[in-house]
Amino acid sequence: MRSWLPIPADSDFSLYNLPYGIFDAGDQRPRAGIAIGDHIIDLAAAAETGLFGKKRFFKKIFEQPVLNDFIALGKPVTNRIRKKVLDWLCLPQRPDTADNILTSRTKARMHMPVRVGDYTDFYSSIEHATNVGKMFRPDNPLLPNWRWLPVGYHGRASSIVVSGTPVQRPHGQIKLPDAEAPIFSASRRLDFELEMAFIIGKETQMGETIPVDKAEEYIFGMVLFNDWSARDIQAWEYVPLGPFLGKNFASSVSPWIVPIEALKNVRTKGPRQNPAPLDYLKQRKAGNYDIELEVAIQPKGKQETIVCKSNFRYLYWSMAQQLAHHTVNGCNIRVGDIMASGTISGPEKGSFGSLLEISWGGKESIAMADGSTRTFLQDGDTVVIRGSAKKDGMKIGFGEVSGEITN
Amino acid sequence: MRSWLPIPADSDFSLYNLPYGIFDAGDQRPRAGIAIGDHIIDLAAAAETGLFGKKRFFKKIFEQPVLNDFIALGKPVTNRIRKKVLDWLCLPQRPDTADNILTSRTKARMHMPVRVGDYTDFYSSIEHATNVGKMFRPDNPLLPNWRWLPVGYHGRASSIVVSGTPVQRPHGQIKLPDAEAPIFSASRRLDFELEMAFIIGKETQMGETIPVDKAEEYIFGMVLFNDWSARDIQAWEYVPLGPFLGKNFASSVSPWIVPIEALKNVRTKGPRQNPAPLDYLKQRKAGNYDIELEVAIQPKGKQETIVCKSNFRYLYWSMAQQLAHHTVNGCNIRVGDIMASGTISGPEKGSFGSLLEISWGGKESIAMADGSTRTFLQDGDTVVIRGSAKKDGMKIGFGEVSGEITN
Repeated sequence: MRSWLPIPADSDFSLYNLPYGIFDAGDQRPRAGIAIGDHIIDLAAAAETGLFGKKRFFKKIFEQPVLNDFIALGKPVTNRIRKKVLDWLCLPQRPDTADNILTSRTKARMHMPVRVGDYTDFYSSIEHATNVGKMFRPDNPLLPNWRWLPVGYHGRASSIVVSGTPVQRPHGQIKLPDAEAPIFSASRRLDFELEMAFIIGKETQMGETIPVDKAEEYIFGMVLFNDWSARDIQAWEYVPLGPFLGKNFASSVSPWIVPIEALKNVRTKGPRQNPAPLDYLKQRKAGNYDIELEVAIQPKGKQETIVCKSNFRYLYWSMAQQLAHHTVNGCNIRVGDIMASGTISGPEKGSFGSLLEISWGGKESIAMADGSTRTFLQDGDTVVIRGSAKKDGMKIGFGEVSGEITN
Repeated sequence: MRSWLPIPADSDFSLYNLPYGIFDAGDQRPRAGIAIGDHIIDLAAAAETGLFGKKRFFKKIFEQPVLNDFIALGKPVTNRIRKKVLDWLCLPQRPDTADNILTSRTKARMHMPVRVGDYTDFYSSIEHATNVGKMFRPDNPLLPNWRWLPVGYHGRASSIVVSGTPVQRPHGQIKLPDAEAPIFSASRRLDFELEMAFIIGKETQMGETIPVDKAEEYIFGMVLFNDWSARDIQAWEYVPLGPFLGKNFASSVSPWIVPIEALKNVRTKGPRQNPAPLDYLKQRKAGNYDIELEVAIQPKGKQETIVCKSNFRYLYWSMAQQLAHHTVNGCNIRVGDIMASGTISGPEKGSFGSLLEISWGGKESIAMADGSTRTFLQDGDTVVIRGSAKKDGMKIGFGEVSGEITN
């Protein structure tokens, strides 16, 4: 495939990707776009040229400030739009409409791509669950249910923000070691969690279940996800009903939703599951994806340090298994729901997906490129998560999700 | 106060109440109403007569299928509308507009009153937390954090349904006592939870906190709430991240939102809090409400049995404390968010708010009026929760929330 548009060879947003997002070009008019190289295809403008047929219908859909109604049209439509865009990009020469349709990515501001109905966070990395378990429950790191079902819990939808939004250090109750009573304080153990998330593309009704082998039909696409965590608030509050204020002050997503269809070439097997999953979780197809991930911390005005290199394929439970489990009791899902993976840690230390694990509960300090050290995040630190899949010279990147800690 | 409209003396929906809901009169046109006695005031029709001024504005607001935009207008507006309705009901004689504005309640179908952004469930009854703790963790019933903070967790917004919606018995993983591995099965320990919930009436931005003494300004009103629970699914899945599929298959709300202002005369002190709460949770005003609650189970086609009589005032943590805690880390809230109390158990056995507690983990069977017995819910059982506040001859009732278990 070749385009008349110059696309940098190492761009996350190659012709094989074409992810959807919501942008404005400095005009406060959030609308739908597709990222390509250093540009954005303004889908409303493209609709107006008649590229997709039904001019008024698609213009209206793409002028909305979230992608929900577009996604709800279903994969036959959303994938046809991507195909039309690809064909347009691969025309033998630059079309006259290009000036109207293309916007520079550097000039655009990105918005939340969807209105999130419900947000669920899973806990699907066996390395992460074991590492955290060792610190919180030394006798009993991996709980008995963990290998039988993809453990998950509900998170807060209102505080999911798009990459670039600053994250204020939360206050809350903290119980210091050996103290009798908790104190009220700013969190002293603020952390990131390297995650990815999928966006629901098709709704179900209450009582309906999704078979594991059909689950990906309900997944529109994927994003990078940072599940910010205040470890000290979390440690004190989390029994017996799970994380709450230690998590719900903010979660950040990357702005471009990579359609799951763009990832078909990097599909791969997950880890062997032992014991064998119950029938409703038995997936015939290889369920994982080979997506390289990294996390960098950049102290304010300084050079960044890569603190983690991991891969989405380490996850024990696949997205299809997560979704089959989530709906096996009849729980309904809606277009725009976000389901995150849980922290994606790999087997080696350099692949741990949170500072809690990297600093082993704050015991080991991490050397930064600027000469400083970290156990947890400091004010002014920007955390950047990046991810991309590569195969046979094709690159499908996710861009990044970043956020700066403020006080 | 006296109305030209006959209002049954024992009606939940007295002149002192005037709760808001969304109804349709068999015409598939869900719109806003106020309940009064056996009638509903059609607010869109009332707006059209000019009762509220700004005819077109209010007609449009009240013709929406949820109350969110109306509630977002703020208490000065929403309380003015109630006052106008009260004045209209207390006119010296039946006005000509009555026929257009009034609808029979028995002919109406009720809908979800709000579009729920996020749903949070607290755990604020010390009796319930202690009872459940004794069963799940005999050594350690009330965890160390419980008296320091209102424990809460996020629930599923998509599966909150209005009273009258049938509830399908969920399937899921269950680990039977002494079994090595879990099985997949329909839940055998299906339960209700007697709760009340409040609806958020005013949004905050991320990073903003709500002082406890201002918290009720953010509460629009209250409803009855049944947090259906599959105890066997819950028991196996809930560690370490809290309840998930054991709860998210359905929660039911009563259709009429009683404005918090209607409850001012039944405000009362809560239990003494020991230890004294941290500053951000110290509430100067009495923070509880005296609202009598009961739960009935009606086997299909049979007589009902009251299985619980409790009271909202038993709650250890007040709504204001819950909301101050929820936002102390900067978590933002939105109009239409639902925050439920957790099961409202009282000190005596007849006041326990779930079958788990009433049957003490399924060990003691409950005699029903029709001669049958229960430990947990059977298919065909309808659970009805009712609640009302009474003072000095005034009754402010919540109607009911009911749901039938289907298979």
